[in-house]
Order: sequence, then structure tokens, then C-alpha cells
Amino acid sequence: MRLQQLHVVLVEPQGAANVGSVARAMMNFGFTSLRLVRPRVDHRAPAARHMAVSAADLLAGAEIHDSLASALADCHFSMGTTRRFGKYRQDLLLPRQAGEAVAGLADGTVAALVFGREDSGLTTAELDQCQQLITIPTLPALPSMNLAQAVTVLLYEASLALQTPSMPARREMAATHEEVEAMFAHMRQTLLDAEFLDPQNPDHLLHAFRRMFGRAGLGEREVRILHGLWSRIDWLNSKRAGNGPA
Amino acid sequence: MRLQQLHVVLVEPQGAANVGSVARAMMNFGFTSLRLVRPRVDHRAPAARHMAVSAADLLAGAEIHDSLASALADCHFSMGTTRRFGKYRQDLLLPRQAGEAVAGLADGTVAALVFGREDSGLTTAELDQCQQLITIPTLPALPSMNLAQAVTVLLYEASLALQTPSMPARREMAATHEEVEAMFAHMRQTLLDAEFLDPQNPDHLLHAFRRMFGRAGLGEREVRILHGLWSRIDWLNSKRAGNGPA
Repeated sequence: MRLQQLHVVLVEPQGAANVGSVARAMMNFGFTSLRLVRPRVDHRAPAARHMAVSAADLLAGAEIHDSLASALADCHFSMGTTRRFGKYRQDLLLPRQAGEAVAGLADGTVAALVFGREDSGLTTAELDQCQQLITIPTLPALPSMNLAQAVTVLLYEASLALQTPSMPARREMAATHEEVEAMFAHMRQTLLDAEFLDPQNPDHLLHAFRRMFGRAGLGEREVRILHGLWSRIDWLNSKRAGNGPA
Repeated sequence: MRLQQLHVVLVEPQGAANVGSVARAMMNFGFTSLRLVRPRVDHRAPAARHMAVSAADLLAGAEIHDSLASALADCHFSMGTTRRFGKYRQDLLLPRQAGEAVAGLADGTVAALVFGREDSGLTTAELDQCQQLITIPTLPALPSMNLAQAVTVLLYEASLALQTPSMPARREMAATHEEVEAMFAHMRQTLLDAEFLDPQNPDHLLHAFRRMFGRAGLGEREVRILHGLWSRIDWLNSKRAGNGPA
């Protein structure tokens, strides 16, 4: 993939100086597209422009989105950053692996690196919208990095990896975020109707599937096949429903 | 060498926020010794403390030196950073090589990473006092990095090289080949019974699933969840069969 096809997405950034510093780091490493989801600050504020130095145009051109889903809508591949190693935070990539993953994407792929709030990061629901999760290994004494410094480390690694010849890319076109989310919505309803998911906590098992399919990275055809499977279960279920309760 | 034996030296830093951000990055990556040569700001100023977050003690404990020679006096090995590729700026190390060089030093070696002024870097005379020179590869459009972000990249690389990073390993045990094959056998029968697979060529779609799950790399729990899904479809199918052909 190419540098222009990697969006840097900041969710609810709170510091104008941080947003400006992110813009500078992007320009240092050749990235051009900044997306802000519900920013808590004005990215055109003097403090932001001051930190952006000559990346002021990049900063001014930032897109504003009212949801992460909107910021990711056209993306085929998204990676979310987290420093929490909780229940659903398995399979974390290190920055170097993340850079290699980005570099291995087929030309034409649109990707996103997603960063959370300065104080609380990304929520579990937001991380669920990302196919892969990344963590920067820091020490327990002060695990939380400054937002712009975390962005810098990941862009540094992505830029290094993109300059290196990459693995042969997959031939199949990746599904977009919207296509994958529509598949998950179908899956959720089907498996609730089939009483496979616990209606009190349907997301518990769905999380496991999100991690599995996230690691796999679904292609367009694969999403169609999965829709086909859920439709078949819908049909089986309608036969059961048509015959009254089990 | 050990983390405590690597000093971070800032020559004439001009921004209090930058000095604080450097302290935070040091603590993120486990470095403890900060030396300031003729600082142009008070490193105990609120702006510095604010950016240092819980690295405030590290910041407060910074040593002040009136010359680079004084700051390097007890060091066995020093590396200076530069973005200029002039006549005397040959044999530049990249950050990864610099990290490896630091990690390769014998125990007991005292080393320093030296950073220059925000606007003009280190002078030739200052670089001459360093045994090795490092540059972070950035693009010509905006080659100059924010001071704290440059420090972050180098400490990140040094930290990686010094301590085989504790990979946030997947907690889940990978499933064995046998377990995965048993799951595929179950899946095959279930999806044949459910008439989702073409009985003339059931493997056509199963191949697609093998590719997906193969890329994901299934864990033990994931295999159990998938068995659960197939069992649920078996049950739905038995309800249909119990009521005669559709």
C-alpha cells in the first residue's frame, strides 16, 4: 500500500497541542490524511498550529467525523491502539508487526491507524470496530504514552516497513469496514434468533468471532459466503418457528 | 548494559513542555537519568511538570550541566543525533542500529544519547564530542522532528533492543491440528445436512473457510465455540427433519 492510503484517526482528542504534534509527525514520515472523531478541541487553534510547524496545511485539512464508524467507512483494514491487556485484548501486535502488516497490504487498500483519548484510550466497543489491535510495550511504572509520541512510534515503524519490499499481497480484495459490520449485524441477529447467543450478553461470544475474523482479515467474497451461511441458518430457524416453539 | 546506565542529554532545550515530554517518554521506556546542558527553560516550570505526568520526580531530578563535556564526563560511549548530512556527518546510524549498539555495550558501560536544540540541533563541535551519530529518517518536506518525539523513537528502539520485549503473547492456547480437523469434519457434516454446501462439491466453500480460519490461527476456546455453533445448527436442522422435508 501507499502512504496516502493510511488514515490517522484520533478519537475525541482533548489537547490542541497533541493534534498539532500528530500532524507534524505525520508529515515527518510522509502520511497525509488525518481524521478526527468528535474532537474536543479546535484543531485550527493557535496551540495546534504552533505544534504542527509546517504541517499546518495537513492539520487544516483534517476531516471531522461524528463517529468512528463514519471515519472508518471507506477503510478495508483498521488497527486500533490499546495499552490494556484485558479479557478481549488478546492477539496484540507490537509496533513493528503493525508496520509490517500495513506494508503487506495490497495496493488500493485503504487502512486506518486509530488512537483513543489522551486519558482513557479507545473503548472496547471502539476496539471492536478495528480488525487488529496494537500495543506499544511500555513499563508498568508509567505505561501511558503521550498521544503524539505514540502516533510517532507507529508512523515511524509503518514508514520503515513501507520502504522495505513486502510480502506478496493477497489477491482477494479486502472487504470494507461497512461490509464487515453489516455481516456482523446479520450474524448477531441470526445467532440471537437461533438462540446460540445469550440474549443477556450476546456480545460475549461475538467478541470471540470478531477476534477470529479480525485476525483473518475478511475478503469481499468471504463476507458474501458468511452472509450465505447466516441466511441458511435464518431459513432453518424459520422452519422451526413455523412449527411452533421447540 | 542496563537502562539506568543510559543518560538522556538535552543540549540547550528551549521548550519547557518538550523537556517534560522527554521525561514522560523516558519513564515509559524505563530510562531514569536526564541531563540538561545550559537549559533555556526551567525544567521545574508548570508546563514541564504538566507534560511529564507521573515522571515528575524524574524531571525534578534532572542534572544541570554547563557544558556538554561536563554532561558526558563519566560516559564511556555517546551518540549524538542530527538530521544534517554534511561533510562530517558520515556513518550515520539509523535508530534501530543505534538501539542495537546500545544493547551491545558491556555491563558497566555508561552511555549517553545526546539531542540538540529544537530549532538548530547540535553544532558540529558538539557532534564531534559524540562517538557515533544517529539520524531518524524523515521526509524532505518536513525533516525536523519535535524534540520529544525524536527522543521517543530512539528510546523505543533502545528499549526494544535492551530487553527482549515481553510480547503480549496470546493467552489462548493454539488448537492442535487434530482439534482443528475434528472441527472441520463437524462443520462439513453440519453444513451438508443444512444443505448449505453443494453435495456434489462440498469442499468448494469449505476451502474458503479453511483459508479464513487458517489465516486467523484458531485457539482451543475458539474451536469449542465453533463446535457449539455447528451443534446449534444441527439442532435447528433436526427440528426441520423431524417435521419432514421442507
